[in-house]
Amino acid sequence: MTPGNDAVIDALLAREGEIVERLNALLRIPTVGADPACAGAMQQARALLVSRLESFGLENVQLLDGGGEPAVYGEWLHAPGQPTYMIYGHYDVQPADPIDAWTSPPFEPTVRDGCLFARGASDVKGSTTIAIETVGQFLATEGACPVNIKIFLEGEEETGSPSLRAIVAKYRDLLRSDGVLSADGGRASRTVATVNTGARGNAKLEFSLCTASTDLHSGRYGGAVRNALHEMARLVATLHDDAGNVAVRDFDIDALPLTGRQREDTAAFPFDENAFFEDVGASPAGETGYTTRERITLRPALDVNGMWGGYTGSGSKTVIPAKAHAKLSVRVVAGQDPDRVIGAVRQHLEHHCPSGVTLTIDHIGGASPASTLAADSPMVAAAERVLLTQMGQRAIHVRLGASVPITAIFQEMLGIGTLMFGYNLPDEPVHAPDEFFRMESIGLGLKGWTLLLRELRGTAPR
Amino acid sequence: MTPGNDAVIDALLAREGEIVERLNALLRIPTVGADPACAGAMQQARALLVSRLESFGLENVQLLDGGGEPAVYGEWLHAPGQPTYMIYGHYDVQPADPIDAWTSPPFEPTVRDGCLFARGASDVKGSTTIAIETVGQFLATEGACPVNIKIFLEGEEETGSPSLRAIVAKYRDLLRSDGVLSADGGRASRTVATVNTGARGNAKLEFSLCTASTDLHSGRYGGAVRNALHEMARLVATLHDDAGNVAVRDFDIDALPLTGRQREDTAAFPFDENAFFEDVGASPAGETGYTTRERITLRPALDVNGMWGGYTGSGSKTVIPAKAHAKLSVRVVAGQDPDRVIGAVRQHLEHHCPSGVTLTIDHIGGASPASTLAADSPMVAAAERVLLTQMGQRAIHVRLGASVPITAIFQEMLGIGTLMFGYNLPDEPVHAPDEFFRMESIGLGLKGWTLLLRELRGTAPR
Repeated sequence: MTPGNDAVIDALLAREGEIVERLNALLRIPTVGADPACAGAMQQARALLVSRLESFGLENVQLLDGGGEPAVYGEWLHAPGQPTYMIYGHYDVQPADPIDAWTSPPFEPTVRDGCLFARGASDVKGSTTIAIETVGQFLATEGACPVNIKIFLEGEEETGSPSLRAIVAKYRDLLRSDGVLSADGGRASRTVATVNTGARGNAKLEFSLCTASTDLHSGRYGGAVRNALHEMARLVATLHDDAGNVAVRDFDIDALPLTGRQREDTAAFPFDENAFFEDVGASPAGETGYTTRERITLRPALDVNGMWGGYTGSGSKTVIPAKAHAKLSVRVVAGQDPDRVIGAVRQHLEHHCPSGVTLTIDHIGGASPASTLAADSPMVAAAERVLLTQMGQRAIHVRLGASVPITAIFQEMLGIGTLMFGYNLPDEPVHAPDEFFRMESIGLGLKGWTLLLRELRGTAPR
Repeated sequence: MTPGNDAVIDALLAREGEIVERLNALLRIPTVGADPACAGAMQQARALLVSRLESFGLENVQLLDGGGEPAVYGEWLHAPGQPTYMIYGHYDVQPADPIDAWTSPPFEPTVRDGCLFARGASDVKGSTTIAIETVGQFLATEGACPVNIKIFLEGEEETGSPSLRAIVAKYRDLLRSDGVLSADGGRASRTVATVNTGARGNAKLEFSLCTASTDLHSGRYGGAVRNALHEMARLVATLHDDAGNVAVRDFDIDALPLTGRQREDTAAFPFDENAFFEDVGASPAGETGYTTRERITLRPALDVNGMWGGYTGSGSKTVIPAKAHAKLSVRVVAGQDPDRVIGAVRQHLEHHCPSGVTLTIDHIGGASPASTLAADSPMVAAAERVLLTQMGQRAIHVRLGASVPITAIFQEMLGIGTLMFGYNLPDEPVHAPDEFFRMESIGLGLKGWTLLLRELRGTAPR
C-alpha cells in the first residue's frame, strides 16, 4: 500500500471538514452517563449513531440492551472468506465538572491552536468517529470493506461497563468475531510508534486473623496475649522482602520470562521515570533486576489494598484487638493462571500464620488472566505495518499494567483479543477540564484506520 | 489489737441487722448513672447519704458539684497530730440489663444462700456502707475517730468519672489528705490475703505513614512504588520480636527490677492461668523470662490498639494506599516515666521508618505513671496487720495491670496514693445479672475497717 494512492483515503481527506462537523454534532450532545439528567442526551446520541450507521449501509443496525444504557450495533458481513473484526468505541463521556475550569464550554466544540476542545473529544468520540467514518467511506467508495465488520459502540464505558457482560451474554452469537479493533486506548507518543499487546490480569483475596474470642483490655491482658494487629503486621510484612521483592514462594509461577525484544521495547518506550514518581509523590520500590516499566507491565505484583482492625475512631481505646482484616490483590502476567498465583499467596499466609492465630480466607475472587495479543497476531502485524507506513519506524510492543474492563470481558466471554488503535495522545486531558483532541490526529487517524482495515484483509482468523 | 476486745466492733456487730437494712435502703434506689431516667434516683441516693453522714455527726457535709453527678462529702477533722485519710466509695451502679436474666428483681435486695442479691450490692454499695458505718460507729461509741476522716462518695464511677477531675480541681483544698482508703476494688480471694500496692500506668501515641501524595492504581503502579500498608506492617512488625518481647530499645527504661518478694507474691497469687487464657480464647505470648502474672502486672507492655488504611468497605478496590494509620498504647510500671517510654517508641518508629516513607506523629497523650504504694507505706502496713489478724497470714502484695481512673486522678491531682480495701470478691458477678455480695463479708468488713482505722492512728503522714 503506497500512500497517496488510496481512493478511500483521498475521499476521507476530501471530506475531512464534513467529518469534523459530524464529530462536533456528537460532541454537542452531553452524554454524561453518570448523570441521570443526561438520559435524554444518551438517547439522542444513540439515535444519531443509529442513523449514521444506517446511512453507511450497515445492516442489522440496532440497540443492544443489557439493562443499562444500550450499545449501538451495526454490521457489514459481505466479505466471504475474510476475517470478521468488531470495531469498538463508546459514545458516553466523563462528567464535565468543574465546569468553571473550562476555557470554552465543554459541550460547545471549539478549535484553538490546532486542537478541538470538548468533553469527549479525545475520550473517545474523536477516535470513534474516525473508525466508523472509515468503514462508511469504504462502503461508499468501494462498495465493500476489506474485512467483515461489526461495529459496537458502548454507552457505559465511563461508568464501569455495568451491563456489558449482560449485553455480551445476550448477544453472544451476534458479536462473535475474530478480534476487536478498539478506537479507545490511544497512542503512547506522537513520535514513537507503539502497539499495545496486552495487559496484566488480576485476582483478589481477603483474609482475617483472629487471636481471641473478644477484644481484650490492654490493662488486664497487655503483655501476655497475642494481638491480632501485631500478627497481621507480621504476616503482611512477610509478603515482601526489604527491597520490595514479593517473598511468596511460586508467586511468579508460569510467568513467561522476558524476551530480549520485550526488554528492548520496554526500554525504548517514551517514559519519564522521574515524573512518574514525582507526579504522585511516590518513591521507587520493587523487584530487583527489573526496570520500573518492566515492573509495572511485565512482572507480577502484590499489593495490600486495605487493612484494618481494632479501634479506629477518634481518641483512644486501650484494647487488644482480637481481629484484623486485609484485602489484597495481585497483578498477573502472560502465562500465569491467576488462581494458581492466589493459591500461592494463600499457602504463604497459611504457612506463616503462627499457632494460636486463626487465619480465615474470607473471599477469593476477581480472577482474570493477563490479556495478550500474540506477537504474531494478525492484528499486531497489521498495526505494525500501518505504523511503519505512517511513522517510518518499527513499532515497539508495550503492555499495560492493568487490563481495560472491555478487553477482559471480550477475552473472557468471546475468547477474542483486542487491538487498541485510538489516535488520542496521553497529554490530552481526558476526564479533566479543557479536554482536547488534536485536529491533525483526525486526518492521521482516517488514513491509519483505512490502512489497518486493508492490512487485515486476508489474514487468518485469530 | 486483740479481736473480741473492741467496743466499736462489738457495737457494729450488734447493729449488723440494722446496717444491712441501711444497705438495702440504698440498694433499693436504682442509681444507674448511665440512664437519664434515673436522675431522680441519683438525687434520692445523695439525699439519703447526706442525711446519713450528718446523722453520724460528720461536719461540712455537702455535695461537690463538678458539672455532672455531684459527689457526697463529709469530714471529721478532730484528731490533731493524726494523719487525714479520704474514704472513697461510690453510690452509682451499672445498668441492670438484661433484667430478665435476674432471679430476683435487681433493685429488690434479696438474700439467698448467705448472699445478698441486688445491683450494686458487691459494686460497691456493700463495701461503701461498711466503710461509712464504721466511721459513724467510732463517733457514736468513742466520740472520735482514730484519724482524721474525709468521706468522698462519687456518683460517676460506672460512667467513667467524667467530672471527677473538675470536682478535684474545684475542691482541691477541701480534699487534701494523706491517702485514700477505697471501699472499691475488693479482695482477690476468700482464702489468700492480698494487698494491692499499685497499678501499671499508660501512655498513648498515634502515628501515620505516607508513601505518596494520593492513593495509586495498582494496575498503573503495582510493583514499582511503596505501599503505605506494607510499610505500616513492616514497622509494626519491628515493635516485637518473634517470641513476643517488645523490641523497642530502652522500652523498659527505669523499670524497677522485680524483687524476690514480688516474684514470690506474684507466684502465690491465686490465679488460674488456663482459665485466664481459655475464657477469652487467647493464647500466651509475651516477654521471655516472666510468668503471665508478672507480664500483666509487673512488666511494661506495648499494644497496637487500632490500625487502618486503604479500602476497607465491601468488595474490592485495587488501590495502593498512600496513607496508613495506627494507634498504640503502652503500659508502664513503677519507676518509669511514661513520657520517656513513649519517647523510646517514637525513636524506634523514626529509626525504622525507611526513606521514601513519611512518618507523622499525630498525637501523644494520656501519659500517666504507674500508681504505687510503697511497700513501707503506712496504709500498706496497716492493711497487712488487719489481714494478719483476720486471716492469720502475711498478705501478699499484688499489683493491677491497669490503673483505676480514680486512683490515677487522686495520685496526679492530689499527690496521694490509694489503698484498695473493699470486701467484695471476684466471683460476685458485678456488671452482670444476679450480682450479689456475701452476707459474711459484712461482718468481716465492719471488723476489718474498724481495725484499719485504728492501725492508721499514729502513722506518719504519707
